[in-house]
Amino acid sequence: MVGTEEATSNNLKNTTPNETMRVPSSDKVINLDQGDPTVYEEYWQRMGDKCTVVISGSQSLSYFAKSKSICWFLESALEDSIRQLHRTVGNASADDHYIVVGTGSTQLIMASLYALCPPDRVQPTHVVAATPYYSCYPEIGSFMRSTLYEWAGDAKTYKGEGPFVEFVTFPNNPDGEMREVAVKGTTEGKLVHDLAYYWPQYTPINVCANHDIMLFTLSKCTGHAGSRIGWALVKDEVVARKMIKFMEVTTIGVSKEAQIRAAKILEVVTESCPSLGPENFFQHSRLIMADRWKRLREVVKEMEFFSLLDYPKSYCNFANVYSTTQPAFAWMKSDENKIKDLEKHLKGEKILTRNGNRFGTESNYVRISMLSTNEDFNIFLERMLAMKETMEAVQYNGI
Amino acid sequence: MVGTEEATSNNLKNTTPNETMRVPSSDKVINLDQGDPTVYEEYWQRMGDKCTVVISGSQSLSYFAKSKSICWFLESALEDSIRQLHRTVGNASADDHYIVVGTGSTQLIMASLYALCPPDRVQPTHVVAATPYYSCYPEIGSFMRSTLYEWAGDAKTYKGEGPFVEFVTFPNNPDGEMREVAVKGTTEGKLVHDLAYYWPQYTPINVCANHDIMLFTLSKCTGHAGSRIGWALVKDEVVARKMIKFMEVTTIGVSKEAQIRAAKILEVVTESCPSLGPENFFQHSRLIMADRWKRLREVVKEMEFFSLLDYPKSYCNFANVYSTTQPAFAWMKSDENKIKDLEKHLKGEKILTRNGNRFGTESNYVRISMLSTNEDFNIFLERMLAMKETMEAVQYNGI
Repeated sequence: MVGTEEATSNNLKNTTPNETMRVPSSDKVINLDQGDPTVYEEYWQRMGDKCTVVISGSQSLSYFAKSKSICWFLESALEDSIRQLHRTVGNASADDHYIVVGTGSTQLIMASLYALCPPDRVQPTHVVAATPYYSCYPEIGSFMRSTLYEWAGDAKTYKGEGPFVEFVTFPNNPDGEMREVAVKGTTEGKLVHDLAYYWPQYTPINVCANHDIMLFTLSKCTGHAGSRIGWALVKDEVVARKMIKFMEVTTIGVSKEAQIRAAKILEVVTESCPSLGPENFFQHSRLIMADRWKRLREVVKEMEFFSLLDYPKSYCNFANVYSTTQPAFAWMKSDENKIKDLEKHLKGEKILTRNGNRFGTESNYVRISMLSTNEDFNIFLERMLAMKETMEAVQYNGI
Repeated sequence: MVGTEEATSNNLKNTTPNETMRVPSSDKVINLDQGDPTVYEEYWQRMGDKCTVVISGSQSLSYFAKSKSICWFLESALEDSIRQLHRTVGNASADDHYIVVGTGSTQLIMASLYALCPPDRVQPTHVVAATPYYSCYPEIGSFMRSTLYEWAGDAKTYKGEGPFVEFVTFPNNPDGEMREVAVKGTTEGKLVHDLAYYWPQYTPINVCANHDIMLFTLSKCTGHAGSRIGWALVKDEVVARKMIKFMEVTTIGVSKEAQIRAAKILEVVTESCPSLGPENFFQHSRLIMADRWKRLREVVKEMEFFSLLDYPKSYCNFANVYSTTQPAFAWMKSDENKIKDLEKHLKGEKILTRNGNRFGTESNYVRISMLSTNEDFNIFLERMLAMKETMEAVQYNGI
């Protein structure tokens, strides 16, 4: 797959925009709005039956999992797989944390707010994250119009008094930066570390994270977004129990089928790690991401209208290489504000992305998923190059 | 299985309380608090591979389902199975309704509140249900301290003005009564019909329900509580879209594995319906429930301390028999208020039930799950009979 990707990359590199335009792009709408991780499908197809799970009709009827965990609906096979994977990758200290499983990490974001925001306050607890922040935080923070918590915007300019919750996304969604806590000089803040993208394919693993609450999701780790499996590593038992209570009241636990399959998938990923070949999941996906980023940077450079962030190199303890962050999303800017609404502009080219204003910043930014299928990623690059001509013509005509 | 049940029933019937006591009950705590539907496990074991699903590692990576439904995460196989089952059973009119799938019907209860409570009101919309009401309604209504809605208690005494939402549970949880709308004389109320127990094993199907929002759950239909699959039949497209939005923001859809399995299970159930033998799921489970109710009524009669509700007979269009409601829960009362806290009393006998006060009524009532394993149900009856002696002794001693 990596070979094919590189070949495609070279093809694109060696074609001028005109030549690319001769190959008519389909009329297909390319959805790069959500980070739908279909890029990983080919790897899992290649793995064949290794991850196949067989579930009989008489399995898992009960609400309860057969487990000794305080999380009464957590399958013990999933707990074991999660702990083993973190030990192998070295990205987070799981062994001294409780595990709370959720219906995706989205539900765990809500559960952590429920657990951290005291119910006895007159004013709702403020929820903040540094801009550009993950677009779902404000949505989740205000959606239910809860008096427990309230979205309060950018953590960098936050001057609130009293308790608050800060989400620290590491590496950050949408822009891939390696974030630190933004609200300084107070001990009243509680932190939720969203580590959805802290995996070797997206960034060098150079520290074993050890925070109070760390959130992960199968969607971005292995690409199984359809399963809706996320997990929280939680240091404090009282907080963990409150999060479990949230799961109990809102969905009475988490699908056992999804947990059984996630356990198998994570086990296979862990087993693949010692391998030096393309069956090593993180090695394989790291190379794909590297290749996609290389190709996108080439196209953006060629176009001269847009820019992307550069990321510093550092050593990955897992992959034993120096590399840069290669985020799951490209955070693309229209230079000199030439295109005021970049999302709208790209939509005109049948490329769906997410507007910068959703992330607390300007509309000359968009977030673009780097996790689509090969076909969609290739069409995206082709359309970008085709756009160059149109944009040059518009500029020339002074329109 | 029914044969075995009847044999056990006869054994119990022919033993005096003393004889039963000679068989020492284990020290096991019997959990009849939740309605954990493990009663159905034996049926599904007997079905062998009929419901087995095989899910490969490369399946269902995407957030999106390949479906034309407005519910973008609903697997079309599940949609087909749900519609086919309702057509076969005749319990609800599904074909002129949208289907919204949820992580259990619990999530759909929240989604319906989100969809029905206008966000622009100064005061939260009131949420009511007639006592005794399902204990989760008040919990869900107040849990998130939402300003969209607020739990307002008993629908029978509700005198509020302006918009409100009434939950109509049919047959009712905990007491099995066939409920009608309780708040009369106003058109400002919106209704959610919770039909979790409107299946042939629990009550005669004598009307094809056709309401604006009808909620169902796999847990109580087939016993697969671990799957966390519920569905709503929704008449109005705008309401359905709001409920879908709720699923999107809170969990980004519903596990595909659980949906795939649920589709298979419902298909097998539908296919079993024409059969006259024990492979007919509803026939089989109807007989089990009948047997359990018969045995419980015998024990309660023998004890002379407790009472159960009686249910009228009516004709079941599905099973083509006259029968009574035989609810998934027994709603047991301590007569003449002899035991003030019946839950506590039974807990002393290592029988966990749910206190009447959780349902908006008195603590001399408990809700007892009738859906446990055979073993647990048998121990429960044995302990009840054993209790008679103790209670008689206490009464005799005037303590």
